[in-house]
Amino acid sequence: MTIADDPATTSPGYKWVGTRPIRPDGFDKVTGRAKFGADLYLPGMLHGHILRSPHAHAKIVSIDTSEAETMPGVKAVITGADFPEPSGKPVDIDMLNNAIARDKVLYEGHVVAGVAATTREQAKAAANAILVTYEALPHVLTVDEAMAEGAEILHPGMITKGMDPAPEAPSNVASRVLFTGGDLDQGFADADVVIEREFTTKPVHQGYIEPHAAVADTTPAGKSTVWCSSQGHFAMRTFTAQVLGWDTSRVKVIPAEIGGGFGGKTVIYLEPLAVRLSQKAGRPVKLVMSRDEVFRATGPASGTRMRMKVGATKDGKITAAELWQAFEAGAYAGSPVGAGAMCALAPYELTNFKIEGFDVVCNKPRVASYRAPGAPISAFAVECVLDEAAKAIGMDPVDFRMANAVEEGSQATYGPKFPVIGFKETLQAIKGHPNYQEPLGPNQGRGVAAGFWFNAGMNSSATVHINDDGTATVVTGSPDIGGSRASMALMAAEELGIDMAKIQPVVADTEQVGFNDVTGGSRVTLATGAAVVNACRDVKDQLRARAAKQWDVDVELVEWVDGQAQMTDGSQPPISLEAIAKGWGRTGGPISASSSLNMRGVGAAFSTQVCDVEVDPDTGVTRVLRYTTAQDAGRAIHPSYVEGQLQGGVAQGIGWALNEEYIHNADGVMENDSFLDYRIPLASDLPMIDTVVVEVPNPAHPYGVRGVGEVGIVPPLAAIANAVSEATGHRFADLPLSPPRVLEGILEEG
Amino acid sequence: MTIADDPATTSPGYKWVGTRPIRPDGFDKVTGRAKFGADLYLPGMLHGHILRSPHAHAKIVSIDTSEAETMPGVKAVITGADFPEPSGKPVDIDMLNNAIARDKVLYEGHVVAGVAATTREQAKAAANAILVTYEALPHVLTVDEAMAEGAEILHPGMITKGMDPAPEAPSNVASRVLFTGGDLDQGFADADVVIEREFTTKPVHQGYIEPHAAVADTTPAGKSTVWCSSQGHFAMRTFTAQVLGWDTSRVKVIPAEIGGGFGGKTVIYLEPLAVRLSQKAGRPVKLVMSRDEVFRATGPASGTRMRMKVGATKDGKITAAELWQAFEAGAYAGSPVGAGAMCALAPYELTNFKIEGFDVVCNKPRVASYRAPGAPISAFAVECVLDEAAKAIGMDPVDFRMANAVEEGSQATYGPKFPVIGFKETLQAIKGHPNYQEPLGPNQGRGVAAGFWFNAGMNSSATVHINDDGTATVVTGSPDIGGSRASMALMAAEELGIDMAKIQPVVADTEQVGFNDVTGGSRVTLATGAAVVNACRDVKDQLRARAAKQWDVDVELVEWVDGQAQMTDGSQPPISLEAIAKGWGRTGGPISASSSLNMRGVGAAFSTQVCDVEVDPDTGVTRVLRYTTAQDAGRAIHPSYVEGQLQGGVAQGIGWALNEEYIHNADGVMENDSFLDYRIPLASDLPMIDTVVVEVPNPAHPYGVRGVGEVGIVPPLAAIANAVSEATGHRFADLPLSPPRVLEGILEEG
Repeated sequence: MTIADDPATTSPGYKWVGTRPIRPDGFDKVTGRAKFGADLYLPGMLHGHILRSPHAHAKIVSIDTSEAETMPGVKAVITGADFPEPSGKPVDIDMLNNAIARDKVLYEGHVVAGVAATTREQAKAAANAILVTYEALPHVLTVDEAMAEGAEILHPGMITKGMDPAPEAPSNVASRVLFTGGDLDQGFADADVVIEREFTTKPVHQGYIEPHAAVADTTPAGKSTVWCSSQGHFAMRTFTAQVLGWDTSRVKVIPAEIGGGFGGKTVIYLEPLAVRLSQKAGRPVKLVMSRDEVFRATGPASGTRMRMKVGATKDGKITAAELWQAFEAGAYAGSPVGAGAMCALAPYELTNFKIEGFDVVCNKPRVASYRAPGAPISAFAVECVLDEAAKAIGMDPVDFRMANAVEEGSQATYGPKFPVIGFKETLQAIKGHPNYQEPLGPNQGRGVAAGFWFNAGMNSSATVHINDDGTATVVTGSPDIGGSRASMALMAAEELGIDMAKIQPVVADTEQVGFNDVTGGSRVTLATGAAVVNACRDVKDQLRARAAKQWDVDVELVEWVDGQAQMTDGSQPPISLEAIAKGWGRTGGPISASSSLNMRGVGAAFSTQVCDVEVDPDTGVTRVLRYTTAQDAGRAIHPSYVEGQLQGGVAQGIGWALNEEYIHNADGVMENDSFLDYRIPLASDLPMIDTVVVEVPNPAHPYGVRGVGEVGIVPPLAAIANAVSEATGHRFADLPLSPPRVLEGILEEG
Repeated sequence: MTIADDPATTSPGYKWVGTRPIRPDGFDKVTGRAKFGADLYLPGMLHGHILRSPHAHAKIVSIDTSEAETMPGVKAVITGADFPEPSGKPVDIDMLNNAIARDKVLYEGHVVAGVAATTREQAKAAANAILVTYEALPHVLTVDEAMAEGAEILHPGMITKGMDPAPEAPSNVASRVLFTGGDLDQGFADADVVIEREFTTKPVHQGYIEPHAAVADTTPAGKSTVWCSSQGHFAMRTFTAQVLGWDTSRVKVIPAEIGGGFGGKTVIYLEPLAVRLSQKAGRPVKLVMSRDEVFRATGPASGTRMRMKVGATKDGKITAAELWQAFEAGAYAGSPVGAGAMCALAPYELTNFKIEGFDVVCNKPRVASYRAPGAPISAFAVECVLDEAAKAIGMDPVDFRMANAVEEGSQATYGPKFPVIGFKETLQAIKGHPNYQEPLGPNQGRGVAAGFWFNAGMNSSATVHINDDGTATVVTGSPDIGGSRASMALMAAEELGIDMAKIQPVVADTEQVGFNDVTGGSRVTLATGAAVVNACRDVKDQLRARAAKQWDVDVELVEWVDGQAQMTDGSQPPISLEAIAKGWGRTGGPISASSSLNMRGVGAAFSTQVCDVEVDPDTGVTRVLRYTTAQDAGRAIHPSYVEGQLQGGVAQGIGWALNEEYIHNADGVMENDSFLDYRIPLASDLPMIDTVVVEVPNPAHPYGVRGVGEVGIVPPLAAIANAVSEATGHRFADLPLSPPRVLEGILEEG
């Protein structure tokens, strides 16, 4: 069920925006024709294998590749010595050190060497013949271990940032963030109830179905073409060049289709290795990760420890809120604790608050973005405590949130004032939804939670080419993850006034369209969409000018209506886009337009969700009975794909809440490195997820778009935990709520 | 030797324009890495074979493909029935009918059917198993046969165009062109000498080293990606779509590198066949022509018959000129007789003239453009007769031409007045060249000839992207035939003020840059170059605006000098392009600009050439001793590649003059269909060709560029014939001047 079912409702006056055509890339994707990262084969292509550290923390004493180099089929071997000496600059820490180890390995799975050979088997055999001598070091695996007194220090030069005065001694705390407002003590003193609880979450992986893959073809002249699946081929180009110490323009990246990313494919792993192997071998080289490499060596979301305290009056006003949180960064600094801290209390109008967050390195793979990075974790702590507080004062949990909800003009805890937002509308939508009234049976519980995500704008470029028969090509550089080819074509059809079937949306490589930041931050339909709309409007101005030239009138007397130029006074028969295109040689040449922008006026996203669960008291197994998510999309350009994003966020959140976790043994070795042991939700684990697409248009976007991809994953951890707590009578604060843990809680309650 | 040797001479104030860096595509081309048409391999790709007509003219009674379809490896068979019914519209005559025969075949080599199979051998075997029943028809092979009374009519519906009144009966004359001026009878009456002679030329092939090749991958949804080598992938897209009856946007064409085209790769042959085979087979299909298919079924230059008459006064003034010419069109109308007629007398200031030309169909492959199409043939007749006239009045042949040469303000015989042109400068350059003074020995002769070519402007688009590290990508859609990547990068480096090594020139596919007409007409450095310059200037305006924003000053106070923004009053330290790029997110986002134009103000091209030959009186073999060509380039952006164009035109002209010809037997079957029997000049056949690059800047281009690719082939046919005539004492008027023919002439003179 969705408000957007009737395009007339959601799309006042629009012909294309708000409709649900089949996506332009759909046919190729369902028939297996679409080319993903590993699908490319080039003549003479070699296959690579990466040798990875078996240790969580160790010095590399020596690497002997001599035997490997002589093995059958081997054409190239690389180690850290084949890359520039790390400079200690942030960019090297971010990219180079994690891409390939040099002096020491910092996590199990850290790249040590690579081999390219005629076959994958030969490459693997040779990689295994590389003799690496390690000197094991003590390791720290969690924020607790890493922050403990006397802990092994991963980066001896690292001094905590964000502390005043700065500490003198190095530690594993890379940085601290702090947001405060009002008088916390007074706030808690004013409260009728105060709830405080400590929470933990485990690292979880984005679980994209497609493993990382890259093919590089490097010329002896030192230019490389890279095919890879990523959320941003421009970023892959920049990062690859940075790791190699090259000019950006020496690398061309051609985007493959992407089989899921969710933030995890914004990071560089294989590409510079493939380029270097290809350069040494003089042949194209393909690298493809196995699933266990994806788990071991790409970035999961942070494991965390948090303490959340809230005070509220009996009539439902929050008087104070305090959140302490420590996020695992993995081996190199850069957890999303900053974003997590900023989002944590953003949905609420608060006077007295303190949020303190720590970015903590430890001997696990470096974390990466995962859908609204940091926010689901923070919301887990915040929304669980709010749930307890509402119960403590006997108030409906939606009403409690409504009583404290931010609206236009409210000051966010992270600083700015909100423009037009739709948080209250999502609360209303959930309160009024049939799901919220369904009676519950025994062992069943209902959980509510809300969530916030900034959404991002960032840099986007688009070009629109009119073809010589009046069809159009819409070129963007944003990989199509959630149906953006469809949304770009819809907006272009709406602007140009021609049938969407006449529009070919294209995702171009890094040389053939202007710069685009990654597809992430729920930003593409917003920012790349705005660039498409700008380019279309430029094209329309050109089309009007061509008609004006033909009619020998001022361009101001020509308007563009329904795909044709017409005189405002109707004094000439209209000229169609097709006719203008076919005669463009006489009026000034071909017609194209480009637009580049750094999108401002990002529309913030809110989601409110309710779920019903039933917990089996004998096994601790939780079954999700019903799940409803209401989210402000601003404007749903293609409602089906918006609904898909809402459902996808919830599905992943349910997995995070109930089952997913990285399990490391005492040596820091991951033990559940396959989808058999790391259990993401199957279709059979989930109910049909009901979506309510709320539309409070974002005034900064020509069609009112807000990003929709991320905020949907923010509430589920808390919503599920609140529901399970209600179903069992036990308050759970440690994820995942896997059957043993739930059973333990039930048994505790006795 | 070239005037352009010293960049300081040719490039006043320029840093990059006029220099000679290594071409960006050079390394890949000389190391074999560059991918030409036949170099693409796709997984699952099938190989095709084309069945062609063995008859010069025949009805197709029936085609039985049943056996072929069941043969091993065969995945698809196509015939004319797999394409739309020809509509009789010009576009179908131009494209569809020639692409695949339906009811009758019009020349030996005309496509009848195609097969796609797992291997080339299987495809060939199956094609040979297709049973075609023909009913032979009489054929006509030359303009003489085709224009004869009672000749077999190729197209019974074809009425000659350009005649008033229009003839009632169909004929093989597709059209007539006529250019007249003054009073011809009076002009000849005023002459002291009148020379008249009849000429013939044979069809000759462009002789590009790379045969045509295409790979098509067509989706079941009906979109196709085509890789092919051509002079214009946008044209290939349009033509392919037209032959298939599709929207242009359903076809994407990715340009391969091109191993020579010279006009012959502006025509559609394999592409729609590959698309249709791929669509039927559900797999990618590759088609590659063999050399004999290239000869038999792609367009050579016209064979012709011409009559030329000139009258002149004793003091060297031309009083009248009359040219009659009939050009073979091959099987379908469209010889370059129109261009030939327009160019014929264009170098001369004439009051009384008449040029009448006929486009005549016959049962040979349809002719195609060949470097300055039509002009070398016309110049052969004109410049030989002028040579005789100069000799008759005892005047130096260069002086004779100078006395009649057009200059700025002269009215061309084809209509318009000339803007600034450099014809007289080329005459002066030859007159003053050491070659012109070399003493000649026995059996040696010197020949002079001049030539004109319009050059073309047409539609071009370009985009310039600044990358995030301050390097730049220059994107065009013009296949790089003569070094245009280098010339585009040079102009962009000059404009942006950065090192050319920081600029990556890219030839983009049909979806990733604005529309571009074919690389032909000597138009790319001119028109695409102008689009690149426009886009760079737009980029510079944006860069200035970004700096102005950073300085918070009016953009008018910011200038762009040497790759950096600076305040006109020097009040701020300059900001480099790199710094602006790295901070673009703060000033408005990425920086790109596009330009599309239909280039006006084409600069006409003139060439004057002198050559010395020695003829062996015993064998009739002609050896070219010295050859000097002076040509107005307007401005040589990259002098080496300009010189290469000048030399290439002469080399091909020498082949045309001395050896090349299509030899058909009485059945209309080509007999010399290999490079063993069709003899293009080898390196050992040619002297070093001296070039004099004259630079009379074209005011319509930002750097003064005129096209340089074509006019160089206009004078050689006549220059060689004049030299051979002088060496032998016999006036030759039939090409080629092959040893038997020359020997015959010598023997005639006794």
